[in-house]
Amino acid sequence: MLILNNDEIETLLSMDTTIEVLDKAYRQLANGEAVNRPRTDLYLPFPETSGVYAFKSMEAGLFDPKVVALRLNSDVIRWEDRGGRIVKDKLPKAPGGKWVGLVLLFSAETGEPLAIFPDGVIQAFRVAASSALAARYMARQDVTHLGIFGSGWQARAHVEAFCKVRTFEKVLVFSPTKANRESFAGEMAERVHLPVEPCADAERVAEECQVLVAATNAITRVIPPEWVRPGIHFTCVKTSELGDDTITRADRVVIHTRKIAPENYIAGMGDERVEAHDPIEFLNAADKQAVARPEVPPWINAPELHDVVSGKESGRSRPDESTCFVNNIGLGVQFAAVGSAVYEDARAKGLGREIPTEWFLESVHP
Amino acid sequence: MLILNNDEIETLLSMDTTIEVLDKAYRQLANGEAVNRPRTDLYLPFPETSGVYAFKSMEAGLFDPKVVALRLNSDVIRWEDRGGRIVKDKLPKAPGGKWVGLVLLFSAETGEPLAIFPDGVIQAFRVAASSALAARYMARQDVTHLGIFGSGWQARAHVEAFCKVRTFEKVLVFSPTKANRESFAGEMAERVHLPVEPCADAERVAEECQVLVAATNAITRVIPPEWVRPGIHFTCVKTSELGDDTITRADRVVIHTRKIAPENYIAGMGDERVEAHDPIEFLNAADKQAVARPEVPPWINAPELHDVVSGKESGRSRPDESTCFVNNIGLGVQFAAVGSAVYEDARAKGLGREIPTEWFLESVHP
Repeated sequence: MLILNNDEIETLLSMDTTIEVLDKAYRQLANGEAVNRPRTDLYLPFPETSGVYAFKSMEAGLFDPKVVALRLNSDVIRWEDRGGRIVKDKLPKAPGGKWVGLVLLFSAETGEPLAIFPDGVIQAFRVAASSALAARYMARQDVTHLGIFGSGWQARAHVEAFCKVRTFEKVLVFSPTKANRESFAGEMAERVHLPVEPCADAERVAEECQVLVAATNAITRVIPPEWVRPGIHFTCVKTSELGDDTITRADRVVIHTRKIAPENYIAGMGDERVEAHDPIEFLNAADKQAVARPEVPPWINAPELHDVVSGKESGRSRPDESTCFVNNIGLGVQFAAVGSAVYEDARAKGLGREIPTEWFLESVHP
Repeated sequence: MLILNNDEIETLLSMDTTIEVLDKAYRQLANGEAVNRPRTDLYLPFPETSGVYAFKSMEAGLFDPKVVALRLNSDVIRWEDRGGRIVKDKLPKAPGGKWVGLVLLFSAETGEPLAIFPDGVIQAFRVAASSALAARYMARQDVTHLGIFGSGWQARAHVEAFCKVRTFEKVLVFSPTKANRESFAGEMAERVHLPVEPCADAERVAEECQVLVAATNAITRVIPPEWVRPGIHFTCVKTSELGDDTITRADRVVIHTRKIAPENYIAGMGDERVEAHDPIEFLNAADKQAVARPEVPPWINAPELHDVVSGKESGRSRPDESTCFVNNIGLGVQFAAVGSAVYEDARAKGLGREIPTEWFLESVHP
């Protein structure tokens, strides 16, 4: 069994490959040749820490290649108010100040485990590649300016990914912290070989760009409805960055998956599944049922990404249409597709650390 | 991070310990100090093999110790007709003719992975220990004869476990294959220091014993309603071994969990969760909805095991009551409790293989 780290994955994985294997995986999903188990979050509230421990997991299987991937996150979470924006922070409590996110890959032919590796690089690649894949089928061909909100990992990956599906002349980045947006601009200009301008004025970014990407860790709105104008394409890494009024302002909406919230299981709440976006909000809510069964959003019946990728639905019908891709929640199939590509490439190049598969097998009949 | 194998776990784990840590875990569950994510099964039907690949997973977290356990199975499955009994078989397709079932243990304080080990020994122990735990609170004190149906791993573990909670004089075992029931009798007589009689006549076992345990791999009925008489306690490792009419014949029923079926996700069925016990039956069913939403069984509102263990419900009120424990589906909390006990004991005794925890951590902010 192969162990890989993020550095190795970064050398193995290209954004082009990520976009292409996802394109193939979404087609399989559309054709019933793949299966997802939606994300579930397990919560242990520890009031003494004013936070929770969360264990997230999702799985998916593909017919080609015949693999199953399990992606898990083992997170120590705190909620903080950063200048009026409520931000959920995951604390690096593991030894050496590290986080824990893993992908386990299995063969669907023999059942054996093939590899284990951290999810960080793939996570950034797959979210951005999915957004870019949507843009490939939804954005106008003649776009020139890319506007990015946020300056973290997700924002970096999104700039790189969007430059693979459209030819931009310039990138504008807004991030509330000056130092962040400036280091981001410097780094990204080199990576995508384009002028990248740091902007203190978010509205200017919205006015000058035909493609807007919200890739922040804010759980408050980033793109207001007024910014939605004819011909624009915009997207987000979570629905709270847009809000229903911004999403429904678009002439055409495509969503990543109809699953609107993870299925939460919370200690003290019994075996009932709680479909709340934020279990802390749920725990503090007076009317728990209202939070537990979130209102079905008005865009819920929009086509899913795999419908557009497979050609069952069109992504754009007119140049002056405003289009929105809601990258609302991740799918295991992304990790199965990208993870197996990374695994095969690592095998071909002889990268990674080998441990005996034997350790993870048993002669006990289940 | 610690790697353990089944041999090591067998030397570390005693049935007494298993029963006691489960007793403690069910009390935590009753008090809202533990959480389960119910089992989900992911299916990739491969018609060319007249079978499926199944990836099962379940998770649970405890407050004491602060751990989360993920249990997974990566199974290559075939359905076979064995002398009229339809038996689901899991084929050892992994290298060396092995199966794949794993438990991953995480710290809920730091998030770090603590250990990975195969599930086989713990699986047999935890199912049997839960049945025995129910018997501790439900069976009469004066029982003398234990009747066991089945001669596999589960049956062996059940005999051992039941002998921990009641003092039996004799064990009778029925299994359709002569060689199986005889080798079982020989082996178990040594293990529990009691006479163990192999019986070709299942009905005789039912007549002579006051405690009946169905621990087979049959998915057809093992214990008919006629065998339910005053004062008897009976149990199963899956509901199909009893059937609703046998279960409801008991004066008092306790179930393991109100969750009656795993949540199946099947390639080709879209994102819809299919709550069928048998996805193959589902795939072949004319009326898929009927199979997908199994009829709620008449015993569904019976107390759950944690209600009885925690004392919220009584297990038996009169000597002449017939009592039934439906060990209907596993819970992750069993693996969290037993797995963490095994882990702590292995640490104390310096057993297992150490691999760098560092390999499973990342410095990428999620």
